[in-house]
Amino acid sequence: MIDVIAAHRAPIVTALREIDRTAGHELTAVNRWGEDLRTRLLDFTERGKLIRGSLVAASSVALGREPDRAVYTVAAAVELVQSFLLIHDDIMDEDPLRRGVPAIFEQYGRHGVEHGFRSAARFGESMGICAGDVAVLVGFAAIGGIDVSPTTRVRLITLLASEIAKVGVAQMADVANGHAPESATETDIMSVYRFKTGRYTFSLPLMLGAILADTDEATIGALGRWGELEGIIFQIRDDELGLMQDTDDIGKPAGSDVAANKQTLHRLVLSSRLPGSGYEDVMRCFGQDSLRPDQIARVREALVATGTIAAIDERVASLRSRAAAELSSQALSEDARRVFDAIDEYNAHRTV
Amino acid sequence: MIDVIAAHRAPIVTALREIDRTAGHELTAVNRWGEDLRTRLLDFTERGKLIRGSLVAASSVALGREPDRAVYTVAAAVELVQSFLLIHDDIMDEDPLRRGVPAIFEQYGRHGVEHGFRSAARFGESMGICAGDVAVLVGFAAIGGIDVSPTTRVRLITLLASEIAKVGVAQMADVANGHAPESATETDIMSVYRFKTGRYTFSLPLMLGAILADTDEATIGALGRWGELEGIIFQIRDDELGLMQDTDDIGKPAGSDVAANKQTLHRLVLSSRLPGSGYEDVMRCFGQDSLRPDQIARVREALVATGTIAAIDERVASLRSRAAAELSSQALSEDARRVFDAIDEYNAHRTV
Repeated sequence: MIDVIAAHRAPIVTALREIDRTAGHELTAVNRWGEDLRTRLLDFTERGKLIRGSLVAASSVALGREPDRAVYTVAAAVELVQSFLLIHDDIMDEDPLRRGVPAIFEQYGRHGVEHGFRSAARFGESMGICAGDVAVLVGFAAIGGIDVSPTTRVRLITLLASEIAKVGVAQMADVANGHAPESATETDIMSVYRFKTGRYTFSLPLMLGAILADTDEATIGALGRWGELEGIIFQIRDDELGLMQDTDDIGKPAGSDVAANKQTLHRLVLSSRLPGSGYEDVMRCFGQDSLRPDQIARVREALVATGTIAAIDERVASLRSRAAAELSSQALSEDARRVFDAIDEYNAHRTV
Repeated sequence: MIDVIAAHRAPIVTALREIDRTAGHELTAVNRWGEDLRTRLLDFTERGKLIRGSLVAASSVALGREPDRAVYTVAAAVELVQSFLLIHDDIMDEDPLRRGVPAIFEQYGRHGVEHGFRSAARFGESMGICAGDVAVLVGFAAIGGIDVSPTTRVRLITLLASEIAKVGVAQMADVANGHAPESATETDIMSVYRFKTGRYTFSLPLMLGAILADTDEATIGALGRWGELEGIIFQIRDDELGLMQDTDDIGKPAGSDVAANKQTLHRLVLSSRLPGSGYEDVMRCFGQDSLRPDQIARVREALVATGTIAAIDERVASLRSRAAAELSSQALSEDARRVFDAIDEYNAHRTV
């Protein structure tokens, strides 16, 4: 992880623990599940890369606010929102592993089995739905209590709520893309990239940091648009790593996106370039449960040979110049430009 | 429904439609599911009794604030939160009907079947999880935009978030009570009543209304404690109606709570009074799928003959005097007392 992000990890963890202590003791007072959930939620959240929370802090610092307790509490709240989304996503994807340990619904499912609960799997999913719900609410309550003006608090909360509502709608499309009999169109795919990664992972944290730094509206708007483009770049790179990397560094087995028939831009461009390429057979690998290493290798070969990788690299280059144009017209300090440049460089060229 | 509540229904519906128009068009801009969800969510929410939203307005009016757009927007937001909880609850309970129409997850499940989606049932549940998530976030964003001071908006949002987080933890216990091999204890049952009905259905709306009316802290605190007791009374009456009423007015078939083995105070007290009563056989009816009319009649007979109904009536009377004591020491107008008395009377003696 790049320095401008990694530097904020420790203070965000501290803020998460503080939220757990203050808001958490109210949950403990409700019943024994309150304490149980606190432990799981804190552990789950701390295991994350904390990218979004770190971007809140990085943006705030870049724009001139010293990162204080308020900044890190907002960053921690954003990570609780991320936990909420992941906890619910894992139920939807029936994905029992997350961040190297059992997903929250899976943890409760196992608790159910161990304690002789009826329909333990359903119990696990129900508890997972509740756990996600509690996480997002604790996040909102935490922002309500930070030491900045009520006006700023309302702006932060309203922006967070309205942006995450849009993420929820983007997630609906993502779910539908995974169940619908027809393949997702480019419009479908780009809309998910724009809202689930662009606005959510980049625009939102950057704008929250800018609000905390009392930045002018024009710059906040430009950061929102820049973040959207940067998020799309990040997502495209993420998809490429998922397809092309063998290492466990990316956190999932090689070929898992192919096996899951993930509706990526790479898959779409590849499928449009296959006819007459001699690689027509590789489409059958998508959505196939147990891929052999030679099949994974052939999909990768096809991605290169058909010019899919090169075509998408060109799109990334074009997105990067549009992003650069968004920020070039804003009055930003040298320090700020250095931070945003580092983020752009990371999104386009990271290898893990 | 009593007048002090029913009077607020129409303006809350107006506020819901206004939220749908303003916040909703942002959802429509994300993808086609945004528009789809808006329609379902508005219809689902309007079909509710709007008790909690009405209590926000009733409390605000009782305490001297004219019910304006801000009051009804908060009331509408509280109803969106209620939709969020119900949409998720229905998934947990696998309950395909709600408010006389298919539950939201069931609606999406049917959409999946009609459009040839893979795993349509799972698709429906995943979309239901997202739909609930979006509902609560739209509610928070709406309160962020009302025309009262930022300080008041932050208070409303923070109270709402922290109370609903506790409802989530209470719901976890409710879920666990339904799956655990052992019966719920009185502590378990009363904790669910306290947080899921007491604090959520009564304390929270009353306190939100009081905050909007700029009421003093002592009165807000007293209303919170009064609401908790009144909510428990409401829930006990609700359970009794569920057990004893034949009519469709209560919205569920006779005996359904017995068949579902719902962990109520009535069930617990009854089970403790059965040994030696001659009605030992009725315990077998609890949790039995298809109950015959004579079995339902025998459970009812046992509830009366064992003195269960009378014992619980005594507890309700004691709760009512504790509730009355909470408000008697507060400086309240005649108008305010009339409203709160009407709510108390309704909770204890309603027949539907």
